[in-house]
Amino acid sequence: MKRFGQIIGVDPQQFEKYKKYHAAVWPEVLEMITACNIRNYSIYHKDGLLFAYMEYIGENFAADMAKMAADPKTLEWWDVMMPMQKPRDTRADGEWWANMEEVFHLD
Amino acid sequence: MKRFGQIIGVDPQQFEKYKKYHAAVWPEVLEMITACNIRNYSIYHKDGLLFAYMEYIGENFAADMAKMAADPKTLEWWDVMMPMQKPRDTRADGEWWANMEEVFHLD
Repeated sequence: MKRFGQIIGVDPQQFEKYKKYHAAVWPEVLEMITACNIRNYSIYHKDGLLFAYMEYIGENFAADMAKMAADPKTLEWWDVMMPMQKPRDTRADGEWWANMEEVFHLD
Repeated sequence: MKRFGQIIGVDPQQFEKYKKYHAAVWPEVLEMITACNIRNYSIYHKDGLLFAYMEYIGENFAADMAKMAADPKTLEWWDVMMPMQKPRDTRADGEWWANMEEVFHLD
């Protein structure tokens, strides 16, 4: 299992809308996340910052992410989410949510 | 089980030191975290921001946190960590690390 921590900004003006969508994520989007071997996935907010924590239980993360990015309903979901998000200037090439560095872990 | 997401800043000048300490956390500090019913505890870094994710499996979070805050070795550890950290101005009364709001979760 591999853990991921990711960060992105959210437009404070649109946070309530973002929250409302995430209180009722479309079932097809949830099913695709699970099908792509993501487990224990949480998103937290404070001060216009979103933090995501997730655990990946598959064998090929790149292939699973490509699968997710090819799913029409997921793309439709992203089309709604992305205008509300403010990606970090420091994100790596090809990232939207920026991967963070794991500094500490205790099981 | 209750999940927590927390945020705090870290002085960029001192981040390497912070990281070095966290690569070899004192065993007594780790044992106290476990004794206080914290599991699956991770800390991530990017852009001078630290994000913590943890799961609490106990029955009385306040009591367990008080127990941790009374442990001499933990207090000694915090004395080293706190000058490197930059707490958020928006944190609640009594907080150091600021609790974030859970916006989304999928098992």
